[in-house]
Amino acid sequence: MNPGRCYGIGVGPGDPELLTVKAVRLLGSCPVVAYFSAPRRESNARRVVQQHLPAGHTELQLVYPVTTEAVAPATYETLLADFYDQSAKRVAEVLDEGLDVAVLCEGDPFFFGSYMYLHHRLRDRYPSEVVPGVSSALAGAAVLGSPLASRNERFTVLSGVLSAPELEAGIAGADSVVVIKVGRNLDKVRDAVRRAGVLDRAYYLEWATLPNQQVMPLADVDGASAPYFSMVVIPGVGATQR
Amino acid sequence: MNPGRCYGIGVGPGDPELLTVKAVRLLGSCPVVAYFSAPRRESNARRVVQQHLPAGHTELQLVYPVTTEAVAPATYETLLADFYDQSAKRVAEVLDEGLDVAVLCEGDPFFFGSYMYLHHRLRDRYPSEVVPGVSSALAGAAVLGSPLASRNERFTVLSGVLSAPELEAGIAGADSVVVIKVGRNLDKVRDAVRRAGVLDRAYYLEWATLPNQQVMPLADVDGASAPYFSMVVIPGVGATQR
Repeated sequence: MNPGRCYGIGVGPGDPELLTVKAVRLLGSCPVVAYFSAPRRESNARRVVQQHLPAGHTELQLVYPVTTEAVAPATYETLLADFYDQSAKRVAEVLDEGLDVAVLCEGDPFFFGSYMYLHHRLRDRYPSEVVPGVSSALAGAAVLGSPLASRNERFTVLSGVLSAPELEAGIAGADSVVVIKVGRNLDKVRDAVRRAGVLDRAYYLEWATLPNQQVMPLADVDGASAPYFSMVVIPGVGATQR
Repeated sequence: MNPGRCYGIGVGPGDPELLTVKAVRLLGSCPVVAYFSAPRRESNARRVVQQHLPAGHTELQLVYPVTTEAVAPATYETLLADFYDQSAKRVAEVLDEGLDVAVLCEGDPFFFGSYMYLHHRLRDRYPSEVVPGVSSALAGAAVLGSPLASRNERFTVLSGVLSAPELEAGIAGADSVVVIKVGRNLDKVRDAVRRAGVLDRAYYLEWATLPNQQVMPLADVDGASAPYFSMVVIPGVGATQR
């Protein structure tokens, strides 16, 4: 029997209408849908595709062993590596039955997505394909109504987990920036944006494209932490100069 | 009469299945479809949406006055600014008739897309909305089968029009890079990648996701120029470390 095919499916930023036609087609044809989720939490990716799932499919829920990084970094890395090993094994068992698996991924699978940790464990043994999706960074610019990058602007995506000096240098070295993984790093990110001199054109977004989305100038955001689905967007200025 | 609504529609990297569900819905409902094109050339964005256009719609073709930058830079900028003024006027005339207009844009409208030059000329007078699309940078990573950026990697998009030192500094300062607008800058881009020390993990892609796509190591590419729809992708290395 030929093994099943493993699809990494980008489901986009949150609005179910921002799935691609290809993603919808594959969700309708794959008998098994897999997704990561935090313990005792609904998967965001699963919720986004709800209306696109046919009746009678099987779901494979891959539940993270830890929700936060409140363990020592080395322990965390070991726990995660073991978890991805086990998750890949579970997906492989389905593929070995000859069934195709659609692995859901918020945004794009190869852009800070968890799917990639399955991908490099499975790609040598099973046919696999990645369906790119709309990144939340681009969706954030659409929500803001502000061109993100134009002409010869240098565009950079930075993780809020980086150190304060790394964040400041990264922001200062680019013309247009998106900071992801803001969460508990909100204070550090805001300080770095201020020191880089671009706080006046920085925006804070959470749950972009979803009914509960929030958009405001970063300077107006109170508090030191933010939800996981939050980001800071600093659009370039070149678009209005032509 | 209420004016029409102006939609900037990202049509994705080239594969017609990589349009979003929302883009397909709006293409089916907007009576007028507008797009930019080079003189005597079919519009790439128009070709991508061919199968999604209903019968009976009207097309508004916005033809660039120059195909290359073979005029003095100041002249080129003046010509383009005049062209965008005239294009915005033509779109406005349709909106004034109460008709919605879908402006097509390769990839994402706010990510190095021409739509943004209409957007800032029209947004104060007409209701407008941007529908984000799949960026060719992400589609390129999917075609390569290589995770683009993961964990805390710094991801950067650079224009091949930048100077050699700017390109080299931008590449060296990031963990994961996509260079767009490669075209006639191919030699300069390849040299910058080599000097930044990452030629061994750089790939050249043209027409990604289309039937005529080409993918090869950048080091193997002959010649000094490339088509407009080409890019260089240097994936990060972090994904396999977890």
